[in-house]
Amino acid sequence: MSVPVTNDLNGITGPMDSISKKALADFSGYYTPRIDACIKEFFNMKMKQATLPFMSECYSHLCEFCLRDGKRIRPLLFIASYRGYKRLFPPARDIISFACAIEIMHAFLLIHDDIIDRSELRRGGKTLHVIAEDTYQEYSLNRNIGNDIAIVLGDILYSNCIEIISTVRINAKIKNRFLQIFANTYEKTGWGQILDSLNTMPRELDAGSDIPSKISELKTAYYTIFYPILMGYVLSGRNNTSEIEAIERFALPLGMAFQYRDDILGTFETDNNTGKSSESDIQEGKFTLLIRETIGGLNSKEKADFSKLFMKRKKSKRDIKRIRAYITATGAFDYVKEQHRDHVHLSMKRLRELNIRKKSREVMNGFIELIDSL
Amino acid sequence: MSVPVTNDLNGITGPMDSISKKALADFSGYYTPRIDACIKEFFNMKMKQATLPFMSECYSHLCEFCLRDGKRIRPLLFIASYRGYKRLFPPARDIISFACAIEIMHAFLLIHDDIIDRSELRRGGKTLHVIAEDTYQEYSLNRNIGNDIAIVLGDILYSNCIEIISTVRINAKIKNRFLQIFANTYEKTGWGQILDSLNTMPRELDAGSDIPSKISELKTAYYTIFYPILMGYVLSGRNNTSEIEAIERFALPLGMAFQYRDDILGTFETDNNTGKSSESDIQEGKFTLLIRETIGGLNSKEKADFSKLFMKRKKSKRDIKRIRAYITATGAFDYVKEQHRDHVHLSMKRLRELNIRKKSREVMNGFIELIDSL
Repeated sequence: MSVPVTNDLNGITGPMDSISKKALADFSGYYTPRIDACIKEFFNMKMKQATLPFMSECYSHLCEFCLRDGKRIRPLLFIASYRGYKRLFPPARDIISFACAIEIMHAFLLIHDDIIDRSELRRGGKTLHVIAEDTYQEYSLNRNIGNDIAIVLGDILYSNCIEIISTVRINAKIKNRFLQIFANTYEKTGWGQILDSLNTMPRELDAGSDIPSKISELKTAYYTIFYPILMGYVLSGRNNTSEIEAIERFALPLGMAFQYRDDILGTFETDNNTGKSSESDIQEGKFTLLIRETIGGLNSKEKADFSKLFMKRKKSKRDIKRIRAYITATGAFDYVKEQHRDHVHLSMKRLRELNIRKKSREVMNGFIELIDSL
Repeated sequence: MSVPVTNDLNGITGPMDSISKKALADFSGYYTPRIDACIKEFFNMKMKQATLPFMSECYSHLCEFCLRDGKRIRPLLFIASYRGYKRLFPPARDIISFACAIEIMHAFLLIHDDIIDRSELRRGGKTLHVIAEDTYQEYSLNRNIGNDIAIVLGDILYSNCIEIISTVRINAKIKNRFLQIFANTYEKTGWGQILDSLNTMPRELDAGSDIPSKISELKTAYYTIFYPILMGYVLSGRNNTSEIEAIERFALPLGMAFQYRDDILGTFETDNNTGKSSESDIQEGKFTLLIRETIGGLNSKEKADFSKLFMKRKKSKRDIKRIRAYITATGAFDYVKEQHRDHVHLSMKRLRELNIRKKSREVMNGFIELIDSL
């Protein structure tokens, strides 16, 4: 699916996707290497300061993990927002430092997420608890050493974010607002993670539940889209409640679309670009919108069969194939694709209501397009 | 053992213990209820803001966990240091807020520690992952739900600390220094935790190892004594390198003594006041100074027997009794008691070198006495 031709978006005529795709590619091409260089420089400093060899070894693993190929969607949205609203002009270097803290916070979150989900792959490489197990199991008879160390390495990354933020010299009031939003970002995401845990392998599958939407909202829409844009807005020196509300109205549907895309790719793509196994959501028993809709479309006998399959701790290839067949046959797959498209369109409409500079608007359009692509 | 009578300490004559004990009791009696009230108020606000019932339920568990009986040694040392050095006079309320963030950070650390150590008791109650398991196991077939939720609740507490710090309005430069030290506090402690994990149930027990001291230094001495005092010092508005060095010279031996006391109580007390099981260090296979010294005092046959016992994943009452007998017979117990006493005395001497006000010095003496008591 490609974004339809529109004539009323910032006066852009012709196929919007080529212009906004280029805007995002240029923007990312400029900033991604700078964000990555800043991350690298930070960890190099940490490795130099390390007082014991295992510390620099761990930092080198963390650095490799943070720098793996990824879209850098959160720090890029943050910078696009800042540039789209800016009134204050802190040195570019400081903006990159904040972006770097946002990306490192994301790595921290992925590390703890992967422990909780018992995932083995992330961004095309081993998850950090697997790396820690491989590296350190020879030291101890503790069978859980990979997880134990990765929990603490995640926490250390979170400390690193605070340290980075502490070193940037900007207006104190704005720094405090940024810090508070930075803290709220994790808090809200954490609640989404807990709600997700409470509904993974749930004892009951309820077709009327609004939990899948709540999880997507907390764990993805606020975290991935709204808060990065809000942090950029706050850092720009502006503080207008109605603009913040407009940002939220734009960001939430885009974030929901992002999650629906992830649900679809995480269930059906065999060679997806998420860097995770495409079976993982089904294997782990995640209660996504796809599953809720499937349940809603089954009669009681089918529901019993589906639930039994879905709740199996270890699902065979055949189990997964049958689960997928249910998801398609009930129309759940089409429903989620439709939800995805509707939310993409809603965010396109809401983007027009933002009082943001044209260049950043184009970058945001590029993100919409990215999230639109299936 | 009680602190000897000294005549050269701030002109105090007569038994010092009675005066400093009273100073600490008065100080704690004044500040502890205020720190606890601030913690309670923060969580009450969070419960009120919660948008879903499980969030306020989790916050009520976190609040109960944070407010359990404890010595509040870190926030009290922080306030004593601030008051002993202060030049700036932020409102008392702000100092209490920082103290509250320091105590909440401690709770975060205990939660993750208890998951890693698979402990079931903390401060006389259930550990948080056990509470989470009890509360939420009915929702999911996930057998690990207690740990999964407690990891995230710990992370949320860390966010809460950042939020609290963000709301305190003080001089921006000092705030940034405070934040950086706050981040370094966890970082250093995290390395201590990882070193501890790497040496729990170690495959090799090395009598010449300096690892037990390194763990104590990173995980306890810096964390419990040095950094709280440093944070108070920084907040006081002072910034003198030689005083910071003097603080470090005082804090490290006191912190080491604190750890040796903990090692002894964690191995021999049957009804200790740590709120943890007295067998836990042995049961978990922690490589403490006690164990290192025991190894050093054994012949090769005894060492083989001891190692076999110590490495057992599940130790019987009889195993623990035999391990304790080895620790006593080799003189390791007496050695660690001696180390404890020497470090206490060193810290008493070093306290005199601090350029701190008399009242705070007395409170610090009270802490020395507390750590001295076995």
